[in-house]
Amino acid sequence: MDENFLLKTPTAQKLYHEHAEGRPIIDYHCHLIPRMVAENKRFESIAQIWLMGDHYKWRAMRSNGIDERFCTGSDTSDWEKFEKWAETVPYTLRNPLYHWTHLELKTAFGINETLNPTNARAIFDKCNDMIANDPKFTPRGLMKHYRVEVVCTTDDPVDTLEWHRMVADDPTATTRMLPTWRPDAGMNIEATAWRAYIKKLEEVSDTAITTFADLTAALQKRHDFFAQMGCRLSDHGIEEFYDEPYTESAIDAIVAKALCGQELTTEEIRQYKHAYLKAQGEMDCRAGWTQQYHYGAIRNNNSRMMAQLGADTGFDSIGEFATAKAMSHFLDELNTEGMLTKTIIYNLNPCANEVVATMLGNFQDGSVAGKIQFGSGWWFLDQKDGMERQMNALSLLGLLSRFVGMLTDSRSFLSYPRHEYFRRTLCNLVGQDIEDGLIPYTGYEEQRVNEMIEDISYNNAKRFFQF
Amino acid sequence: MDENFLLKTPTAQKLYHEHAEGRPIIDYHCHLIPRMVAENKRFESIAQIWLMGDHYKWRAMRSNGIDERFCTGSDTSDWEKFEKWAETVPYTLRNPLYHWTHLELKTAFGINETLNPTNARAIFDKCNDMIANDPKFTPRGLMKHYRVEVVCTTDDPVDTLEWHRMVADDPTATTRMLPTWRPDAGMNIEATAWRAYIKKLEEVSDTAITTFADLTAALQKRHDFFAQMGCRLSDHGIEEFYDEPYTESAIDAIVAKALCGQELTTEEIRQYKHAYLKAQGEMDCRAGWTQQYHYGAIRNNNSRMMAQLGADTGFDSIGEFATAKAMSHFLDELNTEGMLTKTIIYNLNPCANEVVATMLGNFQDGSVAGKIQFGSGWWFLDQKDGMERQMNALSLLGLLSRFVGMLTDSRSFLSYPRHEYFRRTLCNLVGQDIEDGLIPYTGYEEQRVNEMIEDISYNNAKRFFQF
Amino acid sequence: MDENFLLKTPTAQKLYHEHAEGRPIIDYHCHLIPRMVAENKRFESIAQIWLMGDHYKWRAMRSNGIDERFCTGSDTSDWEKFEKWAETVPYTLRNPLYHWTHLELKTAFGINETLNPTNARAIFDKCNDMIANDPKFTPRGLMKHYRVEVVCTTDDPVDTLEWHRMVADDPTATTRMLPTWRPDAGMNIEATAWRAYIKKLEEVSDTAITTFADLTAALQKRHDFFAQMGCRLSDHGIEEFYDEPYTESAIDAIVAKALCGQELTTEEIRQYKHAYLKAQGEMDCRAGWTQQYHYGAIRNNNSRMMAQLGADTGFDSIGEFATAKAMSHFLDELNTEGMLTKTIIYNLNPCANEVVATMLGNFQDGSVAGKIQFGSGWWFLDQKDGMERQMNALSLLGLLSRFVGMLTDSRSFLSYPRHEYFRRTLCNLVGQDIEDGLIPYTGYEEQRVNEMIEDISYNNAKRFFQF
Repeated sequence: MDENFLLKTPTAQKLYHEHAEGRPIIDYHCHLIPRMVAENKRFESIAQIWLMGDHYKWRAMRSNGIDERFCTGSDTSDWEKFEKWAETVPYTLRNPLYHWTHLELKTAFGINETLNPTNARAIFDKCNDMIANDPKFTPRGLMKHYRVEVVCTTDDPVDTLEWHRMVADDPTATTRMLPTWRPDAGMNIEATAWRAYIKKLEEVSDTAITTFADLTAALQKRHDFFAQMGCRLSDHGIEEFYDEPYTESAIDAIVAKALCGQELTTEEIRQYKHAYLKAQGEMDCRAGWTQQYHYGAIRNNNSRMMAQLGADTGFDSIGEFATAKAMSHFLDELNTEGMLTKTIIYNLNPCANEVVATMLGNFQDGSVAGKIQFGSGWWFLDQKDGMERQMNALSLLGLLSRFVGMLTDSRSFLSYPRHEYFRRTLCNLVGQDIEDGLIPYTGYEEQRVNEMIEDISYNNAKRFFQF
Repeated sequence: MDENFLLKTPTAQKLYHEHAEGRPIIDYHCHLIPRMVAENKRFESIAQIWLMGDHYKWRAMRSNGIDERFCTGSDTSDWEKFEKWAETVPYTLRNPLYHWTHLELKTAFGINETLNPTNARAIFDKCNDMIANDPKFTPRGLMKHYRVEVVCTTDDPVDTLEWHRMVADDPTATTRMLPTWRPDAGMNIEATAWRAYIKKLEEVSDTAITTFADLTAALQKRHDFFAQMGCRLSDHGIEEFYDEPYTESAIDAIVAKALCGQELTTEEIRQYKHAYLKAQGEMDCRAGWTQQYHYGAIRNNNSRMMAQLGADTGFDSIGEFATAKAMSHFLDELNTEGMLTKTIIYNLNPCANEVVATMLGNFQDGSVAGKIQFGSGWWFLDQKDGMERQMNALSLLGLLSRFVGMLTDSRSFLSYPRHEYFRRTLCNLVGQDIEDGLIPYTGYEEQRVNEMIEDISYNNAKRFFQF
Repeated sequence: MDENFLLKTPTAQKLYHEHAEGRPIIDYHCHLIPRMVAENKRFESIAQIWLMGDHYKWRAMRSNGIDERFCTGSDTSDWEKFEKWAETVPYTLRNPLYHWTHLELKTAFGINETLNPTNARAIFDKCNDMIANDPKFTPRGLMKHYRVEVVCTTDDPVDTLEWHRMVADDPTATTRMLPTWRPDAGMNIEATAWRAYIKKLEEVSDTAITTFADLTAALQKRHDFFAQMGCRLSDHGIEEFYDEPYTESAIDAIVAKALCGQELTTEEIRQYKHAYLKAQGEMDCRAGWTQQYHYGAIRNNNSRMMAQLGADTGFDSIGEFATAKAMSHFLDELNTEGMLTKTIIYNLNPCANEVVATMLGNFQDGSVAGKIQFGSGWWFLDQKDGMERQMNALSLLGLLSRFVGMLTDSRSFLSYPRHEYFRRTLCNLVGQDIEDGLIPYTGYEEQRVNEMIEDISYNNAKRFFQF
């Protein structure tokens, strides 16, 4: 894993080192905890910064026959958990975890060995020593180390954004932290938590909610507040797109039923989600934001572990949804009323790459270059193969040149090497094409290719989101 | 883009230059306008021959932030449109348009530069000069230049085929132009235009249509006429296959309802399409034609632009249909009654490649080699990656050797380099396999491989369609 | 096709020759006829050992325009059939049949030529001579020749397993032959044969069956018997997974209806299959077996040939099922009650690779390394590309290291070179990664990589199934 890791050709190496490597990071979608940035506390051990909450690693450990106690148990020590992870690492060959692990150890801690049971204790102690003594190993220290210019966290409309304000007001902060509007809780009307959530929203927005118009008004107040706080993006986690026809009175009736705790039909739930997401798209358009849709996961597949550990603990997987027509109808509806804002669509099943990549073209309207974007490889697809397939589909069916590029989507302050991984993968793809004679690389084209790499690494995101 | 463009190995180069390059072109499916061939008018500028009607280029321009006025507007000049296209070309790197563009400029106009804003005006003027002065730049001149032996256009059953007759009667024509039977308008019973179309068909066929049998009789008259005019293929543009059970009386009732302008249920529409396509398959079988099915697009996704520009203007995309069982039932039904003619199936979503490639084998009956064909990469898939995936799926799950090969599916007289692109891609694949030791290339096998390349480039189509 | 066939890099060659080639074969899923092993009769000609019952070859011949008489006809001689196959072989270039054919001729008969019409007669005679004179060309002789340690056949619950017993009692047998529990006939309640099957099951198990509990009790008796006979695996051939809710009384009513010969609704059929498969999963869990699910085929697409030749004659193909949620619910149900045993899922449509590969992780519980397995490329996918895609998906989304590897799934005693093919493909993939710098190969990692190859070739299966 030397300086030319993933870069198979001299041209790829040149592109990376001269046009990608040096660019700062704009991490426009992540799940960092804002409070951790604001408080900037030092971590207690590498297990806390690296293993805690990392369901990717837990999945690998469970697959390797490691008992749950060493993943999420409270009766095992940091060292015991680290030891079991070190035991698992050599079994992750060919899995992206193998590369993430060593890129993280190398770029954050300067460790150039591969982790395995024979050196686990030494690495554990060395890292903990660095964490205890070097201010680099704080949330802000790591963001500075990785030259992160902007991060966009993922926040609920009822959030006070107090930690964002604290960082914004702090002149010593080197990374801008902006909120992202994620109004899923209000959309998931079938969830038992929905009524309590609406109560909370009523309080925070000082708005009584009995109709859909009330709900929208309450959310609009919060949307305005998010905009004041620098928010430029929304995000929606959906299984699929919804296009069930509805009337406003029907939606009001659905809201009334749900507020009384009555059970809704599948049709009603889908009508409501359709109406809700449409209203959200209109808000985003008026605010000039970019809306993001992450679709296609099936979550919480393991009921027993869901009861034991809760959501986001490594029991989600890739779904099979045929949602192209609904996606088309939904975007068309917004477009017809002139309310389709800049949009990024992320799919989880790579079989939908071509569907998404060709959907973009239906709604590109010449107003903004790359107005409708195909999101970078998401979640399970956030690895070399997934990235390559997303970039190839986008290249063949759209314009790679206008791609806003990489994001971490991560909960961890150690995930920034994924930008490096992405850039290396991008440069390797383009460099290979050049060496294969598929892309000219002299004169005008040489400059264009260089700019394209710089754009996808940094400039496109900066321009597109208007940071 | 030299003589070995796309040909990575010496064996690939040998295969292409010795066994593919020199073959004439049989373009058995295209959308050329027959009148343009018959009248053979000179074009007024490269914009008219190259940009007008080319929704691929428009999509790229819209994605690049170019205003619609420069794509389809009537208030912009040919030069302004060309200039905006030249501005977009450098942003299409890795998109097939980048290669199509330069292959077309090179093989038609002898231009070896890459198009970009710095040379746009000079290239525009140079091309226009050639178009004004050289008879090569007429429809027939270009077909002769590219050594096109046969073209099959795409024609409606009510068409008079007068332009086909004019070309057939012209002893100076170097390319045979045959019609293809495309009876979609009669199938799309849910369209507002259907009733008017049936009226037209009544007139043209001199047949009153009140029942499904009447409709079939009217179409059979036209089918016979097309056969007299040299037609050898039919073509159907469908979203998916239909296998809903029906009775003849039910179909009569559906026809009666539709003729009165009553709205049909989805079930009725699908039953009708099933009956209609079955009757079509029977006609084709009796005539010894080859039937083609293009399935899997979702069209006219953008209502606003549909209202403004109409269909086929760049707002279509790849759909997600699970139609394997219906496809199987439909083909089985024809096969059971001994009426399954030679068939080509084209899919638009590459995820269906394996489904289609294995469907063929269910109905190969030993009567004709490669009787059921997997169509070459269609529309969005008509590029190196799409072609490779189609040929790989066909190779692994069927017999590549029996493949009837490439077609342009194009509205443009400049699209013939796609055959060159296809042949280069084919030779590159096979050449790579040889160099990797996967295919022997001495003695008996050397001859077989050479013949396979020649067959797929030319002989298979000639034999299969009986031109 | 020399010793380094498929092995493109020196590292791949080293891995194969030092760590894969020498391992015995554990063929844990096949369709050999146990009686043929027990009786160990000599074959009469290469056509009988090689062409009879091989629907892969028949499909290729039909696609090549060969009349059915030469595939399955009783009016053609062994030589005529062989001749037509030899005529087809050169047209199978790029199809896996081309490699299977020559690997089989080479490893069994020592023939290093490629088969074609010019040498067909000589090869036919030579092979027949060897078959007539060399005891190697018996079922057991071939298994010994290919160093097959264990084979697991596929057997119906009502089977007496008498041939298994005969082989088990024979001290000269060099290959262990174990039964596999395949209870499909009892599951397919919609089939006309179901009632007769239940009668047969009543007799064999000495249990009157009028309720679902009776049925389960009868099957449990047979399950116990299979366990005594060394069975360690079950197998289910399903179109898709079933998760329709049901009550026990509803299932009893369905069973009662079916026993009276009344027709069932689709919903009832699916409820019954759900209940049946769940009961099966519970039995397997109590016995500590591994359950296998093969899903995703659409079978018997050609009614005319089904009537003429019956099932499994080459008229099946890849289906399009969106079964991820049902799969998740079904496995979750067993897991919730603590009854999810070791499981292998095989899909037929490669588009589902990522769905299956991520489904595993939802139910890995740390009890057994690789408890939930992604089955090796099945049927149409049992070739280089299919294997690579399965292994790549498993690598990226799970742990390749824990993969139980290859099986033949075959009816033929000449199919064992598929293990060689698989191992070469595996070593080629891993070797390429090493040469590309994606996997380190020194010190600790060198040993781990070597072990991984040995594990996937042999050790993992041996440990996992507890043979």
